[in-house]
Amino acid sequence: MFESAEIGHQIDKETYDAAVPELRQALLEAQLELREQARFPLIVLLNGIEGAGKGETVKLLNEWMDPRLIQVETFDQQTDEELARPPFWRYWRRLPPKGRTGVFFGNWYSQMLQGRVHGRIDDAQLDQSISTTVRFERMLCDEGALIFKFWLHLSKKQMKARLKTLQDDPLHSWRISPLDWQQSKTYDDFVRYGERVLRRTSRDYAPWYVVEGSDERYRSLTVGRILLEGLQAALRLEERPRRQPHAAPVAASIDNRGLVDSLDMTQSLDKDSYQQQLVAEQARLAQLLRDKRMRRHALVAVFEGNDAAGKGGAIRRVTGALDPRQYHIVPVAAPTEEEQAQPYLWRFWRHIPARGRFTMFDRSWYGRVLVERVEGYCSQADWLRAYSEINDFEEQLTDAGVVLVKFWMAIDQQTQLERFKEREQTAFKRFKITEDDWRNRDKWTQYVDAVNDMVDRTSTEIAPWTLIEANDKRFARVKVLRTINEALEAAFARKR
Amino acid sequence: MFESAEIGHQIDKETYDAAVPELRQALLEAQLELREQARFPLIVLLNGIEGAGKGETVKLLNEWMDPRLIQVETFDQQTDEELARPPFWRYWRRLPPKGRTGVFFGNWYSQMLQGRVHGRIDDAQLDQSISTTVRFERMLCDEGALIFKFWLHLSKKQMKARLKTLQDDPLHSWRISPLDWQQSKTYDDFVRYGERVLRRTSRDYAPWYVVEGSDERYRSLTVGRILLEGLQAALRLEERPRRQPHAAPVAASIDNRGLVDSLDMTQSLDKDSYQQQLVAEQARLAQLLRDKRMRRHALVAVFEGNDAAGKGGAIRRVTGALDPRQYHIVPVAAPTEEEQAQPYLWRFWRHIPARGRFTMFDRSWYGRVLVERVEGYCSQADWLRAYSEINDFEEQLTDAGVVLVKFWMAIDQQTQLERFKEREQTAFKRFKITEDDWRNRDKWTQYVDAVNDMVDRTSTEIAPWTLIEANDKRFARVKVLRTINEALEAAFARKR
Repeated sequence: MFESAEIGHQIDKETYDAAVPELRQALLEAQLELREQARFPLIVLLNGIEGAGKGETVKLLNEWMDPRLIQVETFDQQTDEELARPPFWRYWRRLPPKGRTGVFFGNWYSQMLQGRVHGRIDDAQLDQSISTTVRFERMLCDEGALIFKFWLHLSKKQMKARLKTLQDDPLHSWRISPLDWQQSKTYDDFVRYGERVLRRTSRDYAPWYVVEGSDERYRSLTVGRILLEGLQAALRLEERPRRQPHAAPVAASIDNRGLVDSLDMTQSLDKDSYQQQLVAEQARLAQLLRDKRMRRHALVAVFEGNDAAGKGGAIRRVTGALDPRQYHIVPVAAPTEEEQAQPYLWRFWRHIPARGRFTMFDRSWYGRVLVERVEGYCSQADWLRAYSEINDFEEQLTDAGVVLVKFWMAIDQQTQLERFKEREQTAFKRFKITEDDWRNRDKWTQYVDAVNDMVDRTSTEIAPWTLIEANDKRFARVKVLRTINEALEAAFARKR
Repeated sequence: MFESAEIGHQIDKETYDAAVPELRQALLEAQLELREQARFPLIVLLNGIEGAGKGETVKLLNEWMDPRLIQVETFDQQTDEELARPPFWRYWRRLPPKGRTGVFFGNWYSQMLQGRVHGRIDDAQLDQSISTTVRFERMLCDEGALIFKFWLHLSKKQMKARLKTLQDDPLHSWRISPLDWQQSKTYDDFVRYGERVLRRTSRDYAPWYVVEGSDERYRSLTVGRILLEGLQAALRLEERPRRQPHAAPVAASIDNRGLVDSLDMTQSLDKDSYQQQLVAEQARLAQLLRDKRMRRHALVAVFEGNDAAGKGGAIRRVTGALDPRQYHIVPVAAPTEEEQAQPYLWRFWRHIPARGRFTMFDRSWYGRVLVERVEGYCSQADWLRAYSEINDFEEQLTDAGVVLVKFWMAIDQQTQLERFKEREQTAFKRFKITEDDWRNRDKWTQYVDAVNDMVDRTSTEIAPWTLIEANDKRFARVKVLRTINEALEAAFARKR
C-alpha cells in the first residue's frame, strides 16, 4: 500500500516554480467558489509518518489559500470538557460549516493508531474504532461534506534521515521530542496498523491518498493538485456532493514516475544459472505442495502483466514439475452469460480452491481496475469501489488460510514492441497477437496509471503484489517460482 | 425494536380473502417483469424467532409466485466442500442470477446469531461478523441486487404457545427438535443479540422489516405487500437499483394497528395519589442526581409527543424539585443559520451534557423522522438514513455513560381536539395554538405511521422508547418521572 510512496518521487525546482502560480490561483478561486456556493464543507485529514511534512503541508495550504476561510484543528490530549463526553464530541464541535475548509491535523485516525501502536487498545478494539469511523465519515459525506484523507509517507530510511536533519537544524530542533524518536522505533508497527486502517477505511467517496513526503516540492504539488481537482469536480456538481466518488487523480503522473518505472529492468539470468535455479525451485515447489502442512492452506497465484510480458511462459514453468492433478489453471476471458448475471466477483469465487489445492489465475479479478477501467467497460463508480471489494475478498481468502501471491509482470515499451513483431513473424505465435494488443499499446500511459493505482490500493501486508522485472524471461520465471515458494514456506512457518 | 411486533397484529379472514387474489396477481406480474428485465436479482432473507413462520412464509411465496423462478436456499451444517473454503463461499455459490429470486432461509445472520447465543463467538467477533456482512450486502446492492430482510417475531409468550401447538399437532410435531426447545430457553439472548445485529445492519438500501408472526394472515399479507411494493419500485427505476433506498412501507398500516394504538389510554391517577406520588418521585430524582455515582454518568431525557400531549407540563414537573443549576432544557425549533451549515446531528451534539449533568430536549433529533418526514422538509433518502445515524449517535452516548430516556407522549385524537379548543378559549394559553397545530392534526395517520417506524427502528436495548399514555396528565407526569428514576437507578446498579 505504501510501495509507490517509497520510490523517491521528486520534482525539480524549475518545474515546481513554473507550476505553482497557476495552481495557487486555481486553488484560491475554487476556495472562493466554495464559499460562494456554501453548499458543503471541505475537510482535509493529514496523517502519516512523523517528519513526512504534515505541519509543512498545513502551512502551505494556509499560504496558498485564503487562511481566513480555513480552520486548522489540532487534537492532542483531550481536555476535561472533552473527557466528560463521548469521544467523538471533540470532532463534532470543530466541524467546518458549509463553504469553509477544516484541516484536521491529528484526528480520529491518529488517535486509534497511536492507541494501537502503544498497546492501549487491541486488534478487536481497533476494528471497532474503524467501524465507528466509517459510519462517521459516511454520515459526513451523506450530509455533503467533501473529505480528503492524506497519508504522508516516508520509508524507514527516509524518516530517519529526516529526523536527523530536523534535529541538526536549530529552527526545527525543538520539534524533535522523545516521543518522535520513540515513534522512529515503532515505525514498523505504525506502518503495519496504518495499512490495516487505510485498507478498511478507504471508500470511493472518501479515499486515502498516499503521498511520498521526502521531497517537499513533490509533496506540495501532489497534495495541491489532488485537492484542486477534487474540489473543482465537486463544485461543478449540480447538487451538493453526497457520497460522490472521488475522481481518483493519479499521484504518480505528477513526476511521471510510477512504481513500475522504478524497477531495475536490466536484471537477467544466464542460461546455466537459469537451468540450475529453475530446476531447484520447481523441485522445492513440488515438495512444498506435498508437505502435510499444505492441508491447512490453499495456494492461489494471480498473474497479471503487460501484453507479451510472459505470463503463459511463467505459468508453464510453475507447473513444470507438478502432477496435473495438483493444480488448476483458470484463464480469465470475457465473462460468460451466466457470469454476467452475477456480481462481478462471483466468477472468481467459484474457482477458489479447497484447502490443500493450488489454483493459478491467468488474468484475474484485477481486470476491473485494469482493462475495464482503461477501456471504459465499466463505470468509474464500479472500478472505484472494486478496490475495497477486492481487498475484502482477499482478506477473506487469507483469513481462511489461502496463501495468495499476486504477480505484475512488467516489460518496457521497447521490449513489448520487439515481442509483438516477433510474434507476427513466427507462424506458431501469430495467434497470440491481435489488433487489440496494438490498440492496448497506444494506451500505455493509461495502463501505467491504472497499475500504479492498483498496487497502491491493493498491495497489502496480507496480500502483497510482487512486481516481476520481465524483460528477461529467465529472470522473471525464476523470480515467480521463488516468490511462490517463499510465500508457502512463510505460511507454513506461521502458527495459525 | 421488536415492540410493535408484540402487540397482537391480526387480520380477519374476510379482509384476508378479499386482499389475497389481487396481491398474488400483482406479485406474479412483478416476478415476470423481473425475469423479463433481468437487470437485477431479488434476495429475500428470512430470520427471526423459532415458530414465527419462516417455513410457512417460504411455502407461501412459492405458492403465490412462480416457483420455477424462485430458488430456496437453506444453510445448515457446512459441507466438507464448504469447510475447505472461506466462510462466505457457501453464500456466493447460491446467489440467484439477475432476473431470479433467491430465498435464503438460514443465512449469514442465522450463523452469527446462533454462534453468539451458544457462546461460540464473543461480542467482538460478533461485531466483526457484522462488518463483514455489511460489506457483503453493500457490494450486492452496488451490483444491483434488491435485498429484503425479514425478521419474523414472536413475544416470548407467543413463542411458547406456538411451540406447544406445533408439538400437539401430529402434522408438525416432527419439527420440534430439542434444539428448538433449547432456543425457547435462550429466547432472551436471541432477542438481545438479534436487536444488536438488526440495529447495526439495517441500511436504507437493505433495511430490516420486523413482522409479527403470530397471526398467519397478518404475517402473510405484510410480507407479501412489502415485497410487492419494493419490487415494483425497483422495476420502475430507469437503471438497475444500486443501493437504492427502500421505500419503507409501513407494516402497521396493514391492520391499522400501531404500537401507539395498543396503549391503554384510560389509565389515570386521582388528585391525591398524584400529589403523593409526584412529590415522592421528585424527591427521589433530586436525591439520585446528587448521588456520587452520578459523576460517572450524564442524564439525557428526550420529549417527543403529539401536539398538546403535555410535554411542557411534564418537563416542568421533572424540574420541579431541582436546583436550576442542575439541569438544562434545550427547546428544539427550526435550526439557526449556523446549525443549517452543519450536518443534521451537529445541533444536538453541541448540547450533550458533561458527566454529572442533566439535559432535557423538548423535541429532539427525532424531528427528522417525524415532522421533517411527514412535511417533506427533507428528502426520503435523508430521513431513511437518519434511523441508523441516530442509533449510532445514541450508542456513542450510552457507551460514554450517558443515561438516555426517550418519551413519546401519546394522546388520542379526541383528547387533542378538546385541548386545542380549550387553548383557543383560554387567553393565556392562546399563544400555544397555531394554524400549524390544526394542519398537523390533518396528518394524524401519517404521524401515526412515522411514530411506529421510529419506535420500530430506534427503540433499542441501550436506548428504549417509553410510550406515555398521556390522556390523563397526572398519570403521564408521574410515569415520566418514575421512568427517569428507574433508568438512573438501573445505571447506578450496573458495573461499568
